[in-house]
Amino acid sequence: MEPSKAERESFEVTPWEVRGRVDYRKLAETFGVKLLSESELKVIERHAGELHYLLRRGFFYAHRGLETILSCIEQKTRWALYTGRGPSADLHLGHIVPWMFAKWLCDKFGVELFFEMTDDEKFLIRDISLEDANRYAYDNALTLIALGFKPSQLHLIVDTEDIGYLYRIALRVAKCLTLSTVKHTFGFTDSMNVGAVFFPTLQISVAFLPTELYREKTPVLIPAGIDQDPYFRLARDLAEKLGYPKPSTIYCKFIPALTGEEKMSASRPETAIYVLDDETTVRRKIMNALTGGQPTRELQRRLGGNPENCVVYRYFLAYVDDDSLVCKIYRDCRQGSILCGECKQILFEHIVKLLRVLRENREKAKDRVWEYRLSTKFK
Amino acid sequence: MEPSKAERESFEVTPWEVRGRVDYRKLAETFGVKLLSESELKVIERHAGELHYLLRRGFFYAHRGLETILSCIEQKTRWALYTGRGPSADLHLGHIVPWMFAKWLCDKFGVELFFEMTDDEKFLIRDISLEDANRYAYDNALTLIALGFKPSQLHLIVDTEDIGYLYRIALRVAKCLTLSTVKHTFGFTDSMNVGAVFFPTLQISVAFLPTELYREKTPVLIPAGIDQDPYFRLARDLAEKLGYPKPSTIYCKFIPALTGEEKMSASRPETAIYVLDDETTVRRKIMNALTGGQPTRELQRRLGGNPENCVVYRYFLAYVDDDSLVCKIYRDCRQGSILCGECKQILFEHIVKLLRVLRENREKAKDRVWEYRLSTKFK
Repeated sequence: MEPSKAERESFEVTPWEVRGRVDYRKLAETFGVKLLSESELKVIERHAGELHYLLRRGFFYAHRGLETILSCIEQKTRWALYTGRGPSADLHLGHIVPWMFAKWLCDKFGVELFFEMTDDEKFLIRDISLEDANRYAYDNALTLIALGFKPSQLHLIVDTEDIGYLYRIALRVAKCLTLSTVKHTFGFTDSMNVGAVFFPTLQISVAFLPTELYREKTPVLIPAGIDQDPYFRLARDLAEKLGYPKPSTIYCKFIPALTGEEKMSASRPETAIYVLDDETTVRRKIMNALTGGQPTRELQRRLGGNPENCVVYRYFLAYVDDDSLVCKIYRDCRQGSILCGECKQILFEHIVKLLRVLRENREKAKDRVWEYRLSTKFK
Repeated sequence: MEPSKAERESFEVTPWEVRGRVDYRKLAETFGVKLLSESELKVIERHAGELHYLLRRGFFYAHRGLETILSCIEQKTRWALYTGRGPSADLHLGHIVPWMFAKWLCDKFGVELFFEMTDDEKFLIRDISLEDANRYAYDNALTLIALGFKPSQLHLIVDTEDIGYLYRIALRVAKCLTLSTVKHTFGFTDSMNVGAVFFPTLQISVAFLPTELYREKTPVLIPAGIDQDPYFRLARDLAEKLGYPKPSTIYCKFIPALTGEEKMSASRPETAIYVLDDETTVRRKIMNALTGGQPTRELQRRLGGNPENCVVYRYFLAYVDDDSLVCKIYRDCRQGSILCGECKQILFEHIVKLLRVLRENREKAKDRVWEYRLSTKFK
């Protein structure tokens, strides 16, 4: 269901609204996905007992086929989560947003997350070795695990090692996908390598894997960035033909770059806070972040700042669960009773606390990754 | 080395020469492969103590890079064999010719055969299910094993089950192969499915697998039909770039259809003797085979037959090791002292004996396939 006009308008006046140069409504229209409606959110809230802040603040804003999952929730039938990562050396805070959300869903709905590390894809499309891509997969998995997943909640798939679980499904997907379709969907030309052209079948396969492993039709919800939609649109197109439930998706807005661009860039260090940045670096990056503050302390006191156009505020929205603190920051900024430096210091403390927990948990996870491997649990 | 003119002429006058509508010299030129020379055969003979009848009768007639293998033979360094099969329900006597040759090489040179059952490819390019393709792989493996391989000699790879051994190599191959190259090499268009386009990387990968498994550079010899050359030409092109020895190939002539066409056709039962044909069927097929005999008994007695243009004689060449018998058949036919019916009866007895051994051995192999699986021996 589309949100009503009133719902849409009410959206726009919450302090949670994330504005920026991306017009998400238009993006949703372009991709042909549905905006998440208030009534859909209410179903989640009713069964979870609360709404995750990424939902109530509109970070997750659009979907395909969420009705299927809501129906599973209401009827208490089995569903599963699926997301993944093209592993790299520079995992940043933007990457982990869908993972945090997935963790919450696991906890609230007792579902399991199938997580695909696409080290094969990284190798095929980037100038890195297979060994490095695989190493990054394990490194990135530590951060994923560090978010607090229990081994029963998280099934880690490393493509190059777990291909045996996916290949037969991928073949059935591949038989339905012509070169034409894949070239058109992903904008590939004949100069692309044949591995990159085959790869989408693997990303699609994981959406069908829970049905194979649980031996019952298992709808899957995929929290992801909307840039991944082409894969899952294909998956939805093929699902019924192959005897699987159509996977559902839920899409997240981008977390902005510290420097003000719409999206953090893994290749430009100053735009993003990496999970492994040291505290000095984190402080520097946050202190240099673009804000919605006034040019001078006096103007800020007099006119107040613009949290809607402030990267620092958006980081509060994205990483600080505490509504009362975030609202206070919003009001204080508006009223000019807080300066950007003070505000950045508060954000810094929250981010550093998050990173410390992640780093501590990463250390503890180092000997325990095998407990999370799909292959440990499904033979 | 090209065969000398004298060598080529001497070839043409042996009773082993297999004539037909295929001009193999021209075929070799078209594919750019070398004809097997007398001096190359002599190296094999010197080290094996004899020449397999498929070599001395010119069935194996051309190669790429056989020098590499001859050098391994002379220097007693490690090499391996590789061949394979797109498994199907209708395995016929034409299919097993390279397997018989491979078995002889295993015995004579103490090398191991890596055998790829491409059930994935069959599924991708034919209208059969993955389950059937996989079932055919196991059925065809029984016949392969029935040729007398010991488990230490034969490493059976079933693509859909052993993909874990191949995928990392295939990815490295795939990264080097553009869509353009694969489309051009195999004549694919954009209406081909993406699985079929990726598949060549798997057929190529097995050529590099022994180097990975033995952890030393291991040249590979591939006995095959020349129709498989495009795969292995690509493999040779990529090998050095990927750090593997260039694979060598040795190509076999087609075994003719019983009905006189150049090649048995799995889809036209009367053209071929299937491994599982019952004796009545085998008798009927052989009795109906096209011969080089004269139209009447009287003319045959007076003029003699034409074994060079006789399918039955070519079956003697392809399946009966005993030179003195084959020479006798040749002479008797030429002289008109044997009639086609008598000759067919002798062939029938030999073929039925071969099929009986295969069927008996297949039964014994049924519980022992696992001993031959690559995965049983290499972890």
